[in-house]
Amino acid sequence: MSQATSETTSANDGDTAKLWRNARLATFASSLPGMGNVEKGAIAVRDGQIAYAGPEAEVPVALRAAETVDCEGRWITPGLIDCHTHLVHAGTRANEFEMRLEGASYEEIARAGGGIVSSVTALRAASEDQLVEETLPRLDALIGEGVTTVEIKSGYGLDRDNEMKALRAARRLGGLRDVTVRTTFLGAHALPPEMKGDKAGYIQKVVSDMLPAIAEAGLADAVDGFCEGIAFSPAEIARVFDAAKALGLPVKLHADQLSNLSGAALAASYGALSADHLEYTDADGAKAMAQAGTVAVILPGAYYFIRETKKPPIALFREHGVMMAIATDNNPGTSPLTSLLLTMNMAATLFGMTVEECLAGTTREAARALGLLDDVGTLEAGKRADFALWDIGQPAELVYRMGFNPLHRRVYRGR
Amino acid sequence: MSQATSETTSANDGDTAKLWRNARLATFASSLPGMGNVEKGAIAVRDGQIAYAGPEAEVPVALRAAETVDCEGRWITPGLIDCHTHLVHAGTRANEFEMRLEGASYEEIARAGGGIVSSVTALRAASEDQLVEETLPRLDALIGEGVTTVEIKSGYGLDRDNEMKALRAARRLGGLRDVTVRTTFLGAHALPPEMKGDKAGYIQKVVSDMLPAIAEAGLADAVDGFCEGIAFSPAEIARVFDAAKALGLPVKLHADQLSNLSGAALAASYGALSADHLEYTDADGAKAMAQAGTVAVILPGAYYFIRETKKPPIALFREHGVMMAIATDNNPGTSPLTSLLLTMNMAATLFGMTVEECLAGTTREAARALGLLDDVGTLEAGKRADFALWDIGQPAELVYRMGFNPLHRRVYRGR
Ligand SMILES: [Zn+2]
Ligand SMILES: [Zn+2]
Repeated sequence: MSQATSETTSANDGDTAKLWRNARLATFASSLPGMGNVEKGAIAVRDGQIAYAGPEAEVPVALRAAETVDCEGRWITPGLIDCHTHLVHAGTRANEFEMRLEGASYEEIARAGGGIVSSVTALRAASEDQLVEETLPRLDALIGEGVTTVEIKSGYGLDRDNEMKALRAARRLGGLRDVTVRTTFLGAHALPPEMKGDKAGYIQKVVSDMLPAIAEAGLADAVDGFCEGIAFSPAEIARVFDAAKALGLPVKLHADQLSNLSGAALAASYGALSADHLEYTDADGAKAMAQAGTVAVILPGAYYFIRETKKPPIALFREHGVMMAIATDNNPGTSPLTSLLLTMNMAATLFGMTVEECLAGTTREAARALGLLDDVGTLEAGKRADFALWDIGQPAELVYRMGFNPLHRRVYRGR
Repeated sequence: MSQATSETTSANDGDTAKLWRNARLATFASSLPGMGNVEKGAIAVRDGQIAYAGPEAEVPVALRAAETVDCEGRWITPGLIDCHTHLVHAGTRANEFEMRLEGASYEEIARAGGGIVSSVTALRAASEDQLVEETLPRLDALIGEGVTTVEIKSGYGLDRDNEMKALRAARRLGGLRDVTVRTTFLGAHALPPEMKGDKAGYIQKVVSDMLPAIAEAGLADAVDGFCEGIAFSPAEIARVFDAAKALGLPVKLHADQLSNLSGAALAASYGALSADHLEYTDADGAKAMAQAGTVAVILPGAYYFIRETKKPPIALFREHGVMMAIATDNNPGTSPLTSLLLTMNMAATLFGMTVEECLAGTTREAARALGLLDDVGTLEAGKRADFALWDIGQPAELVYRMGFNPLHRRVYRGR
């Protein structure tokens, strides 16, 4: 900081004001077309918030004298948001992956202790400290690519204490790193092995035992479920959603991934923040989502990893005006993926999503899917100063490259 | 280093001796089954070479007192080898990628200056220094994942001076980083725009002008070609291979990627180090390769990126005993991929290659594909001490995860 800058800074607004100048902005402001690009742009930050984002020539006088950072023409996007992860888990399922490649059937893998039960067993055996320690490298991988907000689900505990342990671990992660963590209670993820054959009984536990305790402890920002033949029926999910609503918690749903149970429409009927996966969603589902403002969260990592062939109906979502977000779905069984940049490439390459859709899907639309659009997701005055500076010639490079990280610097709440 | 260790070191073999102990080794030694795993293993290094790799309990007495590094139970693999890249290039083709996603046809992209011609124009316009500077971040991405040897092809210059510039840039990269660079002259990559309609004339230039100058300058370790309807015919490739042979240079070939021109068999008939891509290779091609010892280099990045649907015949290669390597094929048009770990995941997920095949494909078999198997590619006495230490529980994790880098430390020639 030069002396002159120091002086002007103190004459103005204290140390918290800063001007990021000589940048190219992809603001994703809804008021601007496309990616909301501003070629000769600047961002003024005050008290961890964006005070101005737009053309450098139009920076308000009061903000011009702040401490400045020359971005040397780099592109700035909103901080990336991973709006669907199961980041807190114990152990890997690499062994199962290896067996599958050697031709083992699902039955053989299950007999060898594989499948989701192995993740439940591992999570239950792990302490909260162990969960934090195991998850940090995954979180750091996301952060290293410019992620500033990440959603983390429970769903491998499947009883009150273990679900709460996982959610507490998720909350602690948000304190250990400069990142916003949003937690989601996913008790209705799978039937715990000790309740085999008693889905109704387990759902009863979810709504009358687990959910109230978790809400009371303030451990969940939202409630999720897995609506699928191999998981829970629409009627069972509805019970969970009714209980969540009664507690004032927003809902979201793993819907229509492997078959069409009209999960998307069910989610929409509860005004869900998002419906996720959606490979089998039909036009009725898309219409209902559009009407309810339920965001479609596209998860290409799982599609790729489990060699799914049915693609989510992107054209239908476009046609009906459904907003689309993109997330890693990081989880040990079907998407051991910790790169949101690679996820965008997959959404483009596998599903034909455009560069603009991919980047909006990990910024503005991901914020919308978390109910955080007032706070983050775009470069606009009044939002938190979460953004990423990139060593790229054009935003498309963030989607085009595979296994390359051009992050120059990540800024979280102005720092 | 403790005092005791220092003393013993000087009593033995000078500062160059070191013992990496308490490790788990995936040696890929041909004498051992599977990945050649050694559970309680150690590697003794002397003068940049492996003096011993095997059970820690059996380390020869003369090597036991060397300076030691406790690997804390970590896995060690041979340094990874990327045996097929076009790493030296100028500019990206992100713009073309973006247009394609927005529905542009190949003709529209070509009219907008896209396609390989745009890479030729950009490379010709770039200075050697610029090429080095632009390529370094890509090389660093590979190195950051444990790569110790990388092959780099020319093929965007398409005239003598520009091909030589690209190869000199590649050689310089090997001097700027602790990595072995092997260069390949790929003059027969595409027809330069100024010779449109005159393939025979261009091949004449390749064999009588470019190749001799490049061989004379010692700029190429091998000679490659692109045998395809959109590139050069088998007869044209044969002319290039004859000239290479006359100069004592080994050959390799981009073969059977988009159609079956019997490129694999052609390569084998010249005793090629490798035939690469091979989506359309048939049983005759596989048999010829097996007989000639020509390695099949599998390139899943390009298959994925251009949304190819025809897979290389992995089962056929297994059946006939063709050795298989795996590489990024890093290039701006069809595989902007700079992660060899991700490449392994693609080979497993998209082509069903096993964990062992994937890891052998980026170590032992990649070394074989470069004619370097005597020097690198396995953890065996007498080879260069190029290896990688990983924070993983089992080798399968290197293939299973997507967008995660568990490299703990890379060792190049013992350091
Ligand atoms: Zn999920
Ligand atoms: Zn190639």
